[in-house]
Amino acid sequence: MLHDPNRVYVFDTTLRDGEQVPGCQLTTPEKIEIARELEALGVDIIEAGFPISSPGDFQSVVEISKAVKEPTVCALTRANKGDIDSAIAALQYAKHPRIHTGIGSSDMHIKHKFNSTREEILERAVEAVKYAKRAVEDIEFYAEDAGRADIHFLAKMVESVIAAGATVVNIPDTNGYCLPDQYGSKIRFLKENVKNIDKAIISVHCHNDLGLATANSIAGLQNGARQVEGTINGIGERAGNTSIEEVVMILKTHHSLGLHTNIKSPMIYEISRMVSSMMRMPVQPNKAIVGGNAFAHSSGIHQDGFLKNRENYEIIRPEDVGFPSATIVLTARSGRHALKFHLERLGYKLDKDELAEVYQRFLVLADHKLDINDEDLHGLMINQPVKQ
Amino acid sequence: MLHDPNRVYVFDTTLRDGEQVPGCQLTTPEKIEIARELEALGVDIIEAGFPISSPGDFQSVVEISKAVKEPTVCALTRANKGDIDSAIAALQYAKHPRIHTGIGSSDMHIKHKFNSTREEILERAVEAVKYAKRAVEDIEFYAEDAGRADIHFLAKMVESVIAAGATVVNIPDTNGYCLPDQYGSKIRFLKENVKNIDKAIISVHCHNDLGLATANSIAGLQNGARQVEGTINGIGERAGNTSIEEVVMILKTHHSLGLHTNIKSPMIYEISRMVSSMMRMPVQPNKAIVGGNAFAHSSGIHQDGFLKNRENYEIIRPEDVGFPSATIVLTARSGRHALKFHLERLGYKLDKDELAEVYQRFLVLADHKLDINDEDLHGLMINQPVKQ
Repeated sequence: MLHDPNRVYVFDTTLRDGEQVPGCQLTTPEKIEIARELEALGVDIIEAGFPISSPGDFQSVVEISKAVKEPTVCALTRANKGDIDSAIAALQYAKHPRIHTGIGSSDMHIKHKFNSTREEILERAVEAVKYAKRAVEDIEFYAEDAGRADIHFLAKMVESVIAAGATVVNIPDTNGYCLPDQYGSKIRFLKENVKNIDKAIISVHCHNDLGLATANSIAGLQNGARQVEGTINGIGERAGNTSIEEVVMILKTHHSLGLHTNIKSPMIYEISRMVSSMMRMPVQPNKAIVGGNAFAHSSGIHQDGFLKNRENYEIIRPEDVGFPSATIVLTARSGRHALKFHLERLGYKLDKDELAEVYQRFLVLADHKLDINDEDLHGLMINQPVKQ
Repeated sequence: MLHDPNRVYVFDTTLRDGEQVPGCQLTTPEKIEIARELEALGVDIIEAGFPISSPGDFQSVVEISKAVKEPTVCALTRANKGDIDSAIAALQYAKHPRIHTGIGSSDMHIKHKFNSTREEILERAVEAVKYAKRAVEDIEFYAEDAGRADIHFLAKMVESVIAAGATVVNIPDTNGYCLPDQYGSKIRFLKENVKNIDKAIISVHCHNDLGLATANSIAGLQNGARQVEGTINGIGERAGNTSIEEVVMILKTHHSLGLHTNIKSPMIYEISRMVSSMMRMPVQPNKAIVGGNAFAHSSGIHQDGFLKNRENYEIIRPEDVGFPSATIVLTARSGRHALKFHLERLGYKLDKDELAEVYQRFLVLADHKLDINDEDLHGLMINQPVKQ
């Protein structure tokens, strides 16, 4: 199935798992804008929505299917015919459609969410894959709460859905519970014990409740997974999903892993800003890869070492992720010209009147804050019509 | 040396490694307030500053030494007499003083930062520990950039500084470069190959440049380290340090690790807010453990499963970290009473005039944002005198 065994497929769910966060809702035109940017970034699969959940979500999947050419467009369903029919209809214009169906795999979910039995759940899983397969060739199956599932039952479920036609098997750590060695072991167990596993791609889908989503994803890839699911900036329910930018840059930095993606990393910072701004989800300054301070060397010891040889304190060059190097520091003593320079650097274009208005608010802020960073500037612009 | 082999010591460097971030600078009274809160939280060691770096930092170490009783107070130095003399003087009032001295251990740092040789660096390391040991019993040694150091040289350095009197050996991944299995292997190698290693505690100090600080710290603890260094909210240079709250809650959630700390976890959310507010470092909504959305279940599927049994989607109870459960949703249609309720829940006490003023700004914000979360409320209050 895989031409290149070291190629990792990037599955972006910013528009589905990310977008369901309160306050993050987007209009269909906004989703199309982000989808096009994801296509340019080199994402392999865009999860565009959950069509049965609302007419708006259905329509977004339709329009994203029309808007992008290269990536696979994926639609989420539960394991039932109504959901799958809706997804099939929504994906009708997709060049490369994928249905993502699935059901709970942990005893906790089977008993307390589905009030069912392992046998019945297994049957529903297989039926759903077969039903979807009649209309769409590319079927991804998710074994919800796999992080807490009995490994032997999980293996049986994976084997059964592959036999039923699943091309990708997603092993989500739905609650962000696993430690990296535990999650890696689960993936390895499946790779070594599911007899038809080579007929599908194993996908990792991790949540960040304990701050381990990125590490768990990497552990999964080290043990045989070849698709990683995540979002831009790690947005998503609760503590969010795996940050795609972190996984991509780890693979790029650690050549010893021997894995690579199709992501054009110099575009990372731009799409990070776009998602943060459009979805109203601030990125904290100390966020890895895309935070406002991610490349800011501040202490005297570090600045000294950095100036002697930047590799003393730098493992990724800012330009590798498209991070702008700021040289002019903004304070309450800065003029409009300096403010304009930085706003333009961040993609905001303002006419003279708009600049004058933002400048007044900038001065109020600068009076209270020792230095004004990119986060602050984005904050200042958040109520302005975005023209980037 | 350790009475309880499963006890993990928590070393907080919010006031040193965290405070050196641009815009995060605190006054001495503010540092004392945070230090007292860290003491109440149950932190074992407070790194209070780098005394030689400025008179203000020196004074902060003096005043924090006077202000706290239980925790060890630690002062940072480079491996030279002037730094160490300054630290000894600054720690004169500490009930439990510790000096944290060290030098680069990677060839990159030895050649390009110190323009030196392994032999000379080793000698300087040993001399620094011996010099500090004359005045202070508890000496922690840091092998800077250990994440990229030759493992055999690192082992030799660790053995030499323990022989010279170091009670704690800190193995920092200064540049946040390591993968968890790599970092864990380094710690295991030291544990298995340094003959006097049981005379000292191994400490993990990780940075988050690749989003792996927490996972690396846990890998270190799994392999024999018994001290973890980090900051509240993971603040710190670049992408920050290990988030103490994440490590603590992982140990508390994963009983199979058999490790425990002295941290009173229900105080975590309060100190997180305090540090964020005083140091002007926003916490993104999708931050693990302490983000505004960390316990927000939003999608229909999740809300349904959650209501059937909260353990379907919850591995940590909000009350375990002191997270307030919001039941009243704030929108542009909310009244002053609802706003007051939520602000008081977050610790802000306002009189009638102040509330009226904040309410006006709240309405402007609510017009632009679909729902107002705790982050937004803290943002609204950031220019108000904090009375929490």
